[in-house]
Amino acid sequence: MINVLFSAPEGRWAQYERPLTEALDDAGVAANLSTHHSPEDVDYVVYAPNGGLSDFTRFTRTKAVLSLWAGVESIVGNETLTMPLARMVDDGLTEGMVEWVTGHVLRHHLNIDLHLHGQDGVWRDWVPPLARDRKVGVLGLGALGSACAQALAALNFDVTGWSRTGKAVDGIACHHGPSGLDTVLARSEIVVLLLPRTPQTENILDAAAIARLPQGAVVVNPGRGALIDDDALLAALDASHLAHATLDVFRTEPLPKDHPFWAHPKVTVTPHIASETRPASAARVIAENIRRGEAGKPLLHLVDRDAGY
Amino acid sequence: MINVLFSAPEGRWAQYERPLTEALDDAGVAANLSTHHSPEDVDYVVYAPNGGLSDFTRFTRTKAVLSLWAGVESIVGNETLTMPLARMVDDGLTEGMVEWVTGHVLRHHLNIDLHLHGQDGVWRDWVPPLARDRKVGVLGLGALGSACAQALAALNFDVTGWSRTGKAVDGIACHHGPSGLDTVLARSEIVVLLLPRTPQTENILDAAAIARLPQGAVVVNPGRGALIDDDALLAALDASHLAHATLDVFRTEPLPKDHPFWAHPKVTVTPHIASETRPASAARVIAENIRRGEAGKPLLHLVDRDAGY
Repeated sequence: MINVLFSAPEGRWAQYERPLTEALDDAGVAANLSTHHSPEDVDYVVYAPNGGLSDFTRFTRTKAVLSLWAGVESIVGNETLTMPLARMVDDGLTEGMVEWVTGHVLRHHLNIDLHLHGQDGVWRDWVPPLARDRKVGVLGLGALGSACAQALAALNFDVTGWSRTGKAVDGIACHHGPSGLDTVLARSEIVVLLLPRTPQTENILDAAAIARLPQGAVVVNPGRGALIDDDALLAALDASHLAHATLDVFRTEPLPKDHPFWAHPKVTVTPHIASETRPASAARVIAENIRRGEAGKPLLHLVDRDAGY
Repeated sequence: MINVLFSAPEGRWAQYERPLTEALDDAGVAANLSTHHSPEDVDYVVYAPNGGLSDFTRFTRTKAVLSLWAGVESIVGNETLTMPLARMVDDGLTEGMVEWVTGHVLRHHLNIDLHLHGQDGVWRDWVPPLARDRKVGVLGLGALGSACAQALAALNFDVTGWSRTGKAVDGIACHHGPSGLDTVLARSEIVVLLLPRTPQTENILDAAAIARLPQGAVVVNPGRGALIDDDALLAALDASHLAHATLDVFRTEPLPKDHPFWAHPKVTVTPHIASETRPASAARVIAENIRRGEAGKPLLHLVDRDAGY
């Protein structure tokens, strides 16, 4: 029986206890999982950097620290953390993004809001077009953008993709560079933003870019808040050039209570949930690494301390 | 030159005249297409059951009745309709159904309503589970049910299917018969009804079946209104055994203005739009069947009068 310490902010234990217990069982690992082992008794640490633990000096028999976070920049320089360190690489993060994007694109495509706001006895038998006749643009063709573009194409949406530098994604018509951006914007009835935040992408959806979108277009942003010029977006919604914006990310999070996005009838705010590490899938990654450690096999997703990730 | 009668509610002729004319031309069929042939002169009837025609006694030389509807329960027992009857199996109909079902399943899976009704400045960062951890049951594994089950499975949902008699659908765990129904109901957090309406399926979701669904389950019905015992459904929603019902079909359509479904906070009514025949694709199916009939080949999508669909 090995001892596994769960070290994370308090609320996380309630979310992780059951998935981790089940994942360890499924992996055939007999483990004593707790938030309260003595450091000297700990074989593995399941670790969130914001849980209070930062001195690993007394963890003398610990075989590995298994991060719940993908980003380890805040711990990679910790000199007391001398044991192997693995970061979280969670399929669930891409899956969750695909589900959020597909769900909100279909919501706008089918005009589900019309029915949710119209439960008033009026039989509004407007039939949406088929997805094959609905043009969707995906800006950003990294792991998340490519996966979303392909999921939308699998549902028959007429998808084009754009990235700053040229990329190829199976089954997707891809454009790049400034003229490619104009092409994609001009045809996109629904545009999904999945670009990273860099100096080149900040405010990429500014007044000029928004003006290129067709009348009645919908903006969906699960990428980064800074990709959009908020004032230009609000102006375009108020002028009815855009029909709606569904936003999951913001320049300040949580979005301040008095921000105009909250009360705007053409804006849907979701609280940065599109791409979140999920306990169930993260627990499977942790359990697999403990299984590997106990079987003498190399751990997955080990951090290279020199490279920093 | 054969005579094809178009028999449907008045507005439909404007939608179908051109697509049908073009599709017949493309199929190489020389036809005189009209809404006003004498019964005795008609070779084929293109037929919507709500167009007023119900006595086929005088259609003595008619070779087939080609329904514009997928559901034929209102005509299958018509004793004057003695000629072959084909139902509509339309790619556009399947695509539209897959889009509606996928959109509403994702809506419930992601709890999109929580955000649409909560644009009040409160950052509700509840993260939905992944689709792989969401159990969806699809009742009915015909063309529409199979396509929906497979589209949901492609999005990683944990899908099981059920049909009255045993069927196999690639990639879907399929059950059948009464005990199979219990199995599927007991595990389905979201259940989608895509059964035909027959004496065997009427009220299949009655109080006992609803009681087998897990606490908090959601019912999605784009199939037929009569599949559900409405009173049992309302009772289960009021008792919070079920969390929500999204219904596209009803025993009476349009749903009467004073029906309790309209005002119920846990019911979403959509106006029979999930599976609407699209003229362009439906016309191609009709024309292909007339071509086959004239070439002495077996018709596609013939209705089995004993089975009822």
